[in-house]
Amino acid sequence: MRVVDLIIKKKNGETLSRDELHFLISGYVNETIPDYQISSLLMAICFQGLSEHEQSDLTLEMLESGERIDLSAVNGICVDKHSTGGVGDKTTLVVAPLVAACGMKMAKMSGRGLGHTGGTLDKLEAIPKFRIALSGEEFFRQVDEISLAVAGQTANIAPADKKLYALRDVTGTVEAVGLIAASIMSKKLASGASHILLDVKVGDGAFMKDLASAQELAEAMVAIGNRQGKKTVALLTDMDQPLGSAVGNSLEVIEAIETLKGRGPKDLETLCLEIATKLLLMTGFEKTREEAFERATTALKDGAALEKLKQMIFYQNGDVRVLEDYSLLPTAKRVIEVKNKSAGYVRKVHALEIGNAAMLLGAGRATKDDLIDLAVGIKVHAKVGDYLEAGDLLATVHANDKHIEEAIQKVEAAFEMVSEKVQPNKLILDIIE
Amino acid sequence: MRVVDLIIKKKNGETLSRDELHFLISGYVNETIPDYQISSLLMAICFQGLSEHEQSDLTLEMLESGERIDLSAVNGICVDKHSTGGVGDKTTLVVAPLVAACGMKMAKMSGRGLGHTGGTLDKLEAIPKFRIALSGEEFFRQVDEISLAVAGQTANIAPADKKLYALRDVTGTVEAVGLIAASIMSKKLASGASHILLDVKVGDGAFMKDLASAQELAEAMVAIGNRQGKKTVALLTDMDQPLGSAVGNSLEVIEAIETLKGRGPKDLETLCLEIATKLLLMTGFEKTREEAFERATTALKDGAALEKLKQMIFYQNGDVRVLEDYSLLPTAKRVIEVKNKSAGYVRKVHALEIGNAAMLLGAGRATKDDLIDLAVGIKVHAKVGDYLEAGDLLATVHANDKHIEEAIQKVEAAFEMVSEKVQPNKLILDIIE
Repeated sequence: MRVVDLIIKKKNGETLSRDELHFLISGYVNETIPDYQISSLLMAICFQGLSEHEQSDLTLEMLESGERIDLSAVNGICVDKHSTGGVGDKTTLVVAPLVAACGMKMAKMSGRGLGHTGGTLDKLEAIPKFRIALSGEEFFRQVDEISLAVAGQTANIAPADKKLYALRDVTGTVEAVGLIAASIMSKKLASGASHILLDVKVGDGAFMKDLASAQELAEAMVAIGNRQGKKTVALLTDMDQPLGSAVGNSLEVIEAIETLKGRGPKDLETLCLEIATKLLLMTGFEKTREEAFERATTALKDGAALEKLKQMIFYQNGDVRVLEDYSLLPTAKRVIEVKNKSAGYVRKVHALEIGNAAMLLGAGRATKDDLIDLAVGIKVHAKVGDYLEAGDLLATVHANDKHIEEAIQKVEAAFEMVSEKVQPNKLILDIIE
Repeated sequence: MRVVDLIIKKKNGETLSRDELHFLISGYVNETIPDYQISSLLMAICFQGLSEHEQSDLTLEMLESGERIDLSAVNGICVDKHSTGGVGDKTTLVVAPLVAACGMKMAKMSGRGLGHTGGTLDKLEAIPKFRIALSGEEFFRQVDEISLAVAGQTANIAPADKKLYALRDVTGTVEAVGLIAASIMSKKLASGASHILLDVKVGDGAFMKDLASAQELAEAMVAIGNRQGKKTVALLTDMDQPLGSAVGNSLEVIEAIETLKGRGPKDLETLCLEIATKLLLMTGFEKTREEAFERATTALKDGAALEKLKQMIFYQNGDVRVLEDYSLLPTAKRVIEVKNKSAGYVRKVHALEIGNAAMLLGAGRATKDDLIDLAVGIKVHAKVGDYLEAGDLLATVHANDKHIEEAIQKVEAAFEMVSEKVQPNKLILDIIE
């Protein structure tokens, strides 16, 4: 087998076999195949795509390049969720305890990642003393005892994916549905959960800008999961405006806690209940949608889910007093109100602009060595469809010292007001299962 | 400027500016841009192509990465010819002396190259003591005094092309018209000639398998040349069967000499006269096609062109006795006749199969470090359209010790006989100017 022949095969639109993908991926990980051949192959894949078989085979090759989490020692059904990422997406902070309160187990390995805010791990680190670095043993014991843990990777998961992703990032080959699907699913399959719920974000603030490409990605991922015997469902959800109100690490932790207290933004609450409902049905914990929704709603409203978050913070050494005293979280020096200029309906809240404003304030990372300011961020007070008078609050900017004026300008620019009535955005756009 | 943004720009089908191409090519040559980004860009170019402007700009960037030959010290009009390569293509060995005998000058830097036989330099080295490594000074003086020289590169021509070609070769990105055109033309423009005749081979034994893609390449190269003020014309010529009869280094030298004696194969003679005629018209040496053709034919028939070859061999220290005594050239130990099995017309002489047979015997190089056996090769005695009885000679295989049986099988397989009459192949398929 010669690498160049396989590159040309893919360039010509042919299908690579499992053996050929094994040769390529194992050779790349072992450094017998150089970056420059793989990047050329990746670009050919961007144009020619990957068949369903190839996507599945590539996923397995990346999965098998590393370790798998063995959750067999954990009693109960382990579920996992994954979001493709968006602005203000703090869903995991609500869903993990909610799912645990509903009787399922969530052993979630999360990441930091690049983006407008930190990843779930960064957000959790806003909680004083919270430990994200658990040993494998601690992680499994915690899941077994309190049904949930959210921690950094305890194992060497899919190293091929890490190496490939780093290469894709600098060679213009990130955007290819098959590669994205294989990358996500190799890590999800390694996580050991038997049921996987994917939240594929769609819109201006998401990686997938339109419904059709999001559907294509969701279908690819669901096919890969199901082919490996993991029940996999994807929700396609709106990211044309930020999810909930808070964008920024501390601010999002507060909003997640508020949601677990039944006082969260409507869209965030709805999405979290929908995810929990779906997981209850997928796992067979409930037979009908009504019963599943009822069970999830009850766990949210009666404080059981909040209690689960408290247990998790306690087990992971965090200061549980934050649940009642948000001043224990990092707090920005300045809070600047951004007001509406002329009365009308909100037609758009450009998620990407809000995200970029948060990034400017220091809430996110552009490169993996950047430091995050956990305190800063933006709270969005108006949603698409709302009617606002002139002078009403659009947003508050929580800033320390960095790029305050530019961030405010971006926030102002993010809101599009019109005089005609506007329909609110639909939150759940599609379900692929 | 970020490399990844330029890769994505090309991936999206946009056009790169001269500045952007300069940034990419100079960065690649200076090793500030790594192979893996360039290979990804090259694959994107394979899918999205290059505009006429981009092709021209890329050519100039590659040209300017190295030295140009300055022929201003040479009196007279310097012309150049280039063939995209085919099986049995010894045209330069005939055309260079023919053109010189017609009053033009040809200062040709040639290569060894990979392929079924060696390059022009290898063929010339079949002549005992022939020197291909001339100093710049020797090269220019020779051209000035006897109007022709064929030698190895005396200068660092288009190093960017060398680096890019080596990368393309291992990343499946050789076949892209814009890249091929820029690669060839960067070297032709560096050669210093004012008039360039391109011989673009078309067919089974050529890089371009069909007329449409050959036309596309020819048009691209002619546009690049003319845009730089060099009169450039391309002939598209048949490579569905070997050119002439001889395939192999010594054998091709003999055939070139025979052609200069007026006893060469019809197709080779016709092509060489056509090239010389075209160059006489391009340079304005003659006004009409009839006069130009007459001048070229005379130079061939009256021995003036043969005399030029003799001068060149003499100037380059070769043994001029080879012109009369072919036994001074490397000679194979065995000559095996391959005979026709059943009477009929020749429908095909698969050039690629003949080339592969020559390669098996040792006539060519697969990698640049391979040694060539100058003595071996194949003589093809039947052309498409010929009628042959059973037992008539198809070819003779000139072999030493290597792969004789396999080569004979390939030669036999190369001939396709049918019972219906067959038209001979058309030699000149198109002219782009």
